[in-house]
Amino acid sequence: MTPDRLEALRQAYGSAPFVAELGMRLVSADEGVCVSALEIEPRHLQQDGFVHAGVQMTLADHTAGAAAATVAQHLYRVLTTEIAIHLLRPAKGERLECVARVLRPGRLLTVVESEVYCESGAARTLVSKATATIANIPGGSP
Amino acid sequence: MTPDRLEALRQAYGSAPFVAELGMRLVSADEGVCVSALEIEPRHLQQDGFVHAGVQMTLADHTAGAAAATVAQHLYRVLTTEIAIHLLRPAKGERLECVARVLRPGRLLTVVESEVYCESGAARTLVSKATATIANIPGGSP
Amino acid sequence: MTPDRLEALRQAYGSAPFVAELGMRLVSADEGVCVSALEIEPRHLQQDGFVHAGVQMTLADHTAGAAAATVAQHLYRVLTTEIAIHLLRPAKGERLECVARVLRPGRLLTVVESEVYCESGAARTLVSKATATIANIPGGSP
Amino acid sequence: MTPDRLEALRQAYGSAPFVAELGMRLVSADEGVCVSALEIEPRHLQQDGFVHAGVQMTLADHTAGAAAATVAQHLYRVLTTEIAIHLLRPAKGERLECVARVLRPGRLLTVVESEVYCESGAARTLVSKATATIANIPGGSP
Repeated sequence: MTPDRLEALRQAYGSAPFVAELGMRLVSADEGVCVSALEIEPRHLQQDGFVHAGVQMTLADHTAGAAAATVAQHLYRVLTTEIAIHLLRPAKGERLECVARVLRPGRLLTVVESEVYCESGAARTLVSKATATIANIPGGSP
Repeated sequence: MTPDRLEALRQAYGSAPFVAELGMRLVSADEGVCVSALEIEPRHLQQDGFVHAGVQMTLADHTAGAAAATVAQHLYRVLTTEIAIHLLRPAKGERLECVARVLRPGRLLTVVESEVYCESGAARTLVSKATATIANIPGGSP
Repeated sequence: MTPDRLEALRQAYGSAPFVAELGMRLVSADEGVCVSALEIEPRHLQQDGFVHAGVQMTLADHTAGAAAATVAQHLYRVLTTEIAIHLLRPAKGERLECVARVLRPGRLLTVVESEVYCESGAARTLVSKATATIANIPGGSP
Repeated sequence: MTPDRLEALRQAYGSAPFVAELGMRLVSADEGVCVSALEIEPRHLQQDGFVHAGVQMTLADHTAGAAAATVAQHLYRVLTTEIAIHLLRPAKGERLECVARVLRPGRLLTVVESEVYCESGAARTLVSKATATIANIPGGSP
């Protein structure tokens, strides 16, 4: 990935107000794979002290979109059409990291898998896994 | 639903910090159905000015959990094990409303459908629909 | 729906060898909705005497595809890109009926919901519910 | 896995009439992973000559159930509560092989991923991928 394209992806990733609001940021990106992260704060939790499913879903979804953008032929705009997530274990720790990998790139639709890990000290646990369908919207601004 | 139980549900719904942070609130509840809402603010949007998928997913998920709690025999704690959402149309407007209905109540697992509507002036549009599996956690406080 | 179009849909529905093999048939069709059915035979069952999930999924998927075809502008070929099903109750009886309704028609993608009912004598029970994304394949034969 | 347990699993796998009808068989099994296969016949196809989604879903589902059974503490009966599949590429070839891996074992619920490959001569292509929730049914016969 060229530095120009990576920079464009970083800007696109962070330009969503909700993503900035939550404190998510793109950590790295390559052809077909993106990594993003979030430092866990009290406002991200649900009633039992674990990270709310909605936070995990937002991270899984937005990182999947970024991964799909890395394999779009032009700098297409991308749009999630569906996403399904399995919440595997309670998420308690300091930091969430999401690794999104393209399972099948397509001209119109790209299928992406997102794994969400929770890091607590030296421990790193897979807490949820999602699969998303991402549509390429023709005519996305360059 | 008795007023005591409704009040307990309202408190449980709002006790999740992430839900309070987003501005979601329970509008009404009955046996097997819950309605919740969110006034849309700029911080809820994605890069193209629509409500971020993560906001819709959080609303769909948390309302589904509340609906599942209405059919739990005791005041169980509930936990989403998986949720899948289809994003049907771009969400642009003043307010999101989510209607969650129990499709199949169970002792251990309850399946719930959540419909998310976007209201703009007098218009009301179905923007996303989710299905979730909610587990009853034994030992929830009475 | 014109008789010609209905007949074309019926032929398309039944032309899949696996559908004929299982004994599925289109019962009725209208703009955005299709109904199909299957008489339950011992070969359709799993080890505990209930209809195998695979039979229910096949019925849900194929009927969803037919419903999507009813809203395609031309007589497009349709293709399922993803389908998720919740198995709500054990299916035991004489006949399965599936009702598939378009949730959101699109030029490229159509989202469809399929409900599978099991009929036993006078009883009719919702046994599973699925949501599918169906892609329109341009260039389908007229 | 002890030979006794493997043999019990093989018998359980094949005892479903629908699985025998389709020609599916368990190829191998270990703690948390199962492989099964199907020789493709004309009756398994859809109208365009590809393996019908329903065949792939049945293989993905049944193999996921077998993988879940390998991590059940006792010889529980298992039951799929939901399964979602992404159909990634058209399946055309001589043989389907499914590899199912437990993502998260649980006392009540096990989450499993199933990958379906299509083999044509020396080529092996990932054609679909599914995630399933499998419930352990207490009181399964020993």
